Amino acid sequence: MSEESKYNYRQIDKLVHSRIRLAVMTILVQQESAPFSYLKDQTGATDGNLSSHLSKLVEAGYITEEKEFVDKKPKTTYFITKEGRKAFEEYLDRLENLIDL
Amino acid sequence: MSEESKYNYRQIDKLVHSRIRLAVMTILVQQESAPFSYLKDQTGATDGNLSSHLSKLVEAGYITEEKEFVDKKPKTTYFITKEGRKAFEEYLDRLENLIDL
Repeated sequence: MSEESKYNYRQIDKLVHSRIRLAVMTILVQQESAPFSYLKDQTGATDGNLSSHLSKLVEAGYITEEKEFVDKKPKTTYFITKEGRKAFEEYLDRLENLIDL
Repeated sequence: MSEESKYNYRQIDKLVHSRIRLAVMTILVQQESAPFSYLKDQTGATDGNLSSHLSKLVEAGYITEEKEFVDKKPKTTYFITKEGRKAFEEYLDRLENLIDL
Protein backbone atom coordinates (compact mmCIF):
# COMPACT_ATOMS: atom_id res chain seq x y z
CA MET A 1 0.00 0.00 0.00
CA SER A 2 1.37 3.42 -0.96
CA GLU A 3 0.65 5.71 1.98
CA GLU A 4 2.40 8.46 0.04
CA SER A 5 0.39 8.02 -3.17
CA LYS A 6 -1.63 11.10 -4.04
CA TYR A 7 -4.43 8.69 -4.92
CA ASN A 8 -4.64 7.29 -1.38
CA TYR A 9 -8.28 7.86 -0.53
CA ARG A 10 -7.67 8.18 3.22
CA GLN A 11 -6.09 11.58 2.65
CA ILE A 12 -9.59 12.92 1.99
CA ASP A 13 -11.33 13.89 5.24
CA LYS A 14 -14.52 11.85 5.14
CA LEU A 15 -16.17 14.16 7.66
CA VAL A 16 -16.04 16.96 5.10
CA HIS A 17 -16.39 14.83 1.95
CA SER A 18 -19.96 13.55 2.43
CA ARG A 19 -22.12 15.45 -0.07
CA ILE A 20 -24.48 17.11 2.42
CA ARG A 21 -21.68 17.96 4.85
CA LEU A 22 -19.57 19.34 2.00
CA ALA A 23 -22.44 21.61 0.94
CA VAL A 24 -22.97 22.76 4.55
CA MET A 25 -19.27 23.38 5.16
CA THR A 26 -18.99 25.35 1.92
CA ILE A 27 -21.91 27.59 2.90
CA LEU A 28 -20.58 28.18 6.42
CA VAL A 29 -17.01 28.82 5.26
CA GLN A 30 -18.31 31.37 2.75
CA GLN A 31 -20.98 32.97 4.94
CA GLU A 32 -19.60 32.40 8.45
CA SER A 33 -23.04 31.42 9.84
CA ALA A 34 -26.46 30.27 8.65
CA PRO A 35 -29.77 29.20 10.22
CA PHE A 36 -31.02 25.63 9.88
CA SER A 37 -33.84 26.69 7.57
CA TYR A 38 -31.39 28.31 5.14
CA LEU A 39 -29.11 25.25 5.11
CA LYS A 40 -32.12 23.05 4.46
CA ASP A 41 -33.36 25.24 1.64
CA GLN A 42 -29.96 25.54 -0.03
CA THR A 43 -28.81 21.92 0.26
CA GLY A 44 -32.20 20.37 -0.49
CA ALA A 45 -31.67 17.89 2.37
CA THR A 46 -34.53 16.58 4.50
CA ASP A 47 -34.82 17.73 8.14
CA GLY A 48 -33.68 14.42 9.62
CA ASN A 49 -30.84 13.91 7.22
CA LEU A 50 -29.55 17.45 7.62
CA SER A 51 -29.80 17.30 11.43
CA SER A 52 -27.82 14.09 11.49
CA HIS A 53 -25.04 15.53 9.32
CA LEU A 54 -24.94 18.78 11.30
CA SER A 55 -24.56 16.81 14.53
CA LYS A 56 -21.52 15.03 13.11
CA LEU A 57 -19.92 18.34 12.20
CA VAL A 58 -20.69 19.75 15.68
CA GLU A 59 -19.19 16.64 17.31
CA ALA A 60 -16.07 17.04 15.17
CA GLY A 61 -15.73 20.64 16.35
CA TYR A 62 -15.99 21.91 12.76
CA ILE A 63 -19.15 23.93 13.46
CA THR A 64 -21.06 25.17 16.51
CA GLU A 65 -24.77 25.71 17.03
CA GLU A 66 -26.74 28.40 18.84
CA LYS A 67 -30.37 27.87 19.79
CA GLU A 68 -32.70 30.79 20.47
CA PHE A 69 -36.38 31.65 20.30
CA VAL A 70 -37.63 34.07 17.67
CA ASP A 71 -41.35 34.92 17.87
CA LYS A 72 -41.67 32.02 20.30
CA LYS A 73 -40.31 29.62 17.67
CA PRO A 74 -37.01 27.80 18.15
CA LYS A 75 -34.28 28.87 15.75
CA THR A 76 -30.90 27.19 15.45
CA THR A 77 -27.99 28.95 13.82
CA TYR A 78 -24.75 27.25 12.82
CA PHE A 79 -21.29 28.81 12.77
CA ILE A 80 -18.03 27.66 11.23
CA THR A 81 -15.21 27.25 13.77
CA LYS A 82 -11.52 28.03 13.29
CA GLU A 83 -10.90 24.27 13.30
CA GLY A 84 -13.64 23.74 10.73
CA ARG A 85 -12.20 26.37 8.44
CA LYS A 86 -8.77 24.75 8.70
CA ALA A 87 -10.22 21.29 8.03
CA PHE A 88 -12.07 22.63 4.99
CA GLU A 89 -8.92 24.25 3.57
CA GLU A 90 -6.92 21.06 4.11
CA TYR A 91 -9.71 19.08 2.50
CA LEU A 92 -9.64 21.33 -0.59
CA ASP A 93 -5.84 21.07 -0.83
CA ARG A 94 -5.93 17.29 -0.75
CA LEU A 95 -8.88 17.07 -3.11
CA GLU A 96 -7.08 19.32 -5.61
CA ASN A 97 -3.97 17.21 -5.21
CA LEU A 98 -5.96 14.04 -5.87
CA ILE A 99 -8.01 15.15 -8.84
CA ASP A 100 -5.32 17.49 -10.12
CA LEU A 101 -7.58 20.52 -10.65
CA MET B 1 -36.18 23.17 -1.46
CA SER B 2 -34.01 25.02 -3.97
CA GLU B 3 -33.43 22.59 -6.81
CA GLU B 4 -31.53 25.36 -8.55
CA SER B 5 -29.25 26.17 -5.61
CA LYS B 6 -25.61 25.54 -6.38
CA TYR B 7 -25.40 24.05 -2.89
CA ASN B 8 -27.96 21.33 -3.66
CA TYR B 9 -26.02 18.19 -2.79
CA ARG B 10 -27.90 16.00 -5.27
CA GLN B 11 -26.06 17.68 -8.13
CA ILE B 12 -22.97 15.77 -7.07
CA ASP B 13 -22.88 12.28 -8.65
CA LYS B 14 -22.58 10.01 -5.64
CA LEU B 15 -21.28 7.18 -7.82
CA VAL B 16 -18.16 9.24 -8.52
CA HIS B 17 -17.99 11.11 -5.19
CA SER B 18 -17.22 8.19 -2.84
CA ARG B 19 -13.55 8.55 -1.87
CA ILE B 20 -12.32 5.21 -3.22
CA ARG B 21 -14.36 5.51 -6.43
CA LEU B 22 -13.15 9.08 -6.92
CA ALA B 23 -9.53 7.93 -6.61
CA VAL B 24 -10.15 5.07 -9.07
CA MET B 25 -11.97 7.28 -11.57
CA THR B 26 -9.19 9.88 -11.41
CA ILE B 27 -6.53 7.25 -12.12
CA LEU B 28 -8.49 5.73 -15.00
CA VAL B 29 -9.37 9.09 -16.56
CA GLN B 30 -5.70 10.10 -16.42
CA GLN B 31 -4.20 6.75 -17.44
CA GLU B 32 -6.99 5.20 -19.52
CA SER B 33 -6.52 1.76 -17.93
CA ALA B 34 -4.96 0.12 -14.88
CA PRO B 35 -4.70 -3.38 -13.38
CA PHE B 36 -6.39 -4.23 -10.08
CA SER B 37 -3.04 -4.50 -8.28
CA TYR B 38 -2.06 -0.98 -9.32
CA LEU B 39 -5.41 0.48 -8.23
CA LYS B 40 -5.07 -1.29 -4.90
CA ASP B 41 -1.52 -0.05 -4.38
CA GLN B 42 -2.33 3.54 -5.32
CA THR B 43 -5.61 3.95 -3.46
CA GLY B 44 -4.56 2.01 -0.37
CA ALA B 45 -7.95 0.23 -0.36
CA THR B 46 -8.36 -3.36 0.81
CA ASP B 47 -9.12 -6.08 -1.77
CA GLY B 48 -12.73 -6.51 -0.75
CA ASN B 49 -13.48 -2.83 -0.46
CA LEU B 50 -11.85 -2.03 -3.80
CA SER B 51 -13.64 -4.92 -5.56
CA SER B 52 -16.97 -3.72 -4.27
CA HIS B 53 -16.39 -0.15 -5.46
CA LEU B 54 -15.10 -1.31 -8.85
CA SER B 55 -18.23 -3.44 -9.31
CA LYS B 56 -20.41 -0.38 -8.74
CA LEU B 57 -18.49 1.56 -11.39
CA VAL B 58 -18.75 -1.37 -13.84
CA GLU B 59 -22.50 -1.63 -13.19
CA ALA B 60 -22.86 2.11 -13.84
CA GLY B 61 -21.05 1.71 -17.17
CA TYR B 62 -18.33 4.13 -16.06
CA ILE B 63 -15.57 1.52 -16.37
CA THR B 64 -15.13 -1.91 -17.94
CA GLU B 65 -13.02 -4.87 -16.84
CA GLU B 66 -10.95 -7.40 -18.77
CA LYS B 67 -9.84 -10.64 -17.17
CA GLU B 68 -6.88 -12.60 -18.50
CA PHE B 69 -4.24 -15.03 -17.27
CA VAL B 70 -0.63 -13.92 -17.03
CA ASP B 71 1.85 -16.65 -15.99
CA LYS B 72 -1.17 -18.75 -15.05
CA LYS B 73 -2.33 -16.06 -12.61
CA PRO B 74 -5.59 -14.16 -13.12
CA LYS B 75 -5.16 -10.49 -13.90
CA THR B 76 -7.99 -7.99 -14.16
CA THR B 77 -7.52 -4.69 -15.92
CA TYR B 78 -9.98 -1.78 -15.73
CA PHE B 79 -10.67 0.77 -18.45
CA ILE B 80 -12.48 4.09 -18.37
CA THR B 81 -15.47 4.25 -20.75
CA LYS B 82 -16.64 7.24 -22.77
CA GLU B 83 -19.62 7.46 -20.42
CA GLY B 84 -17.32 7.32 -17.41
CA ARG B 85 -15.16 10.11 -18.74
CA LYS B 86 -18.23 12.24 -19.37
CA ALA B 87 -19.58 11.51 -15.87
CA PHE B 88 -16.23 12.44 -14.36
CA GLU B 89 -16.09 15.73 -16.24
CA GLU B 90 -19.64 16.59 -15.20
CA TYR B 91 -18.80 15.66 -11.64
CA LEU B 92 -15.80 18.01 -11.65
CA ASP B 93 -17.86 20.84 -13.13
CA ARG B 94 -20.51 20.51 -10.46
CA LEU B 95 -18.01 20.11 -7.68
CA GLU B 96 -16.18 23.26 -8.79
CA ASN B 97 -19.52 25.05 -8.99
CA LEU B 98 -20.39 23.95 -5.45
CA ILE B 99 -17.12 24.65 -3.70
CA ASP B 100 -16.28 27.58 -5.94
CA LEU B 101 -12.71 26.56 -6.76
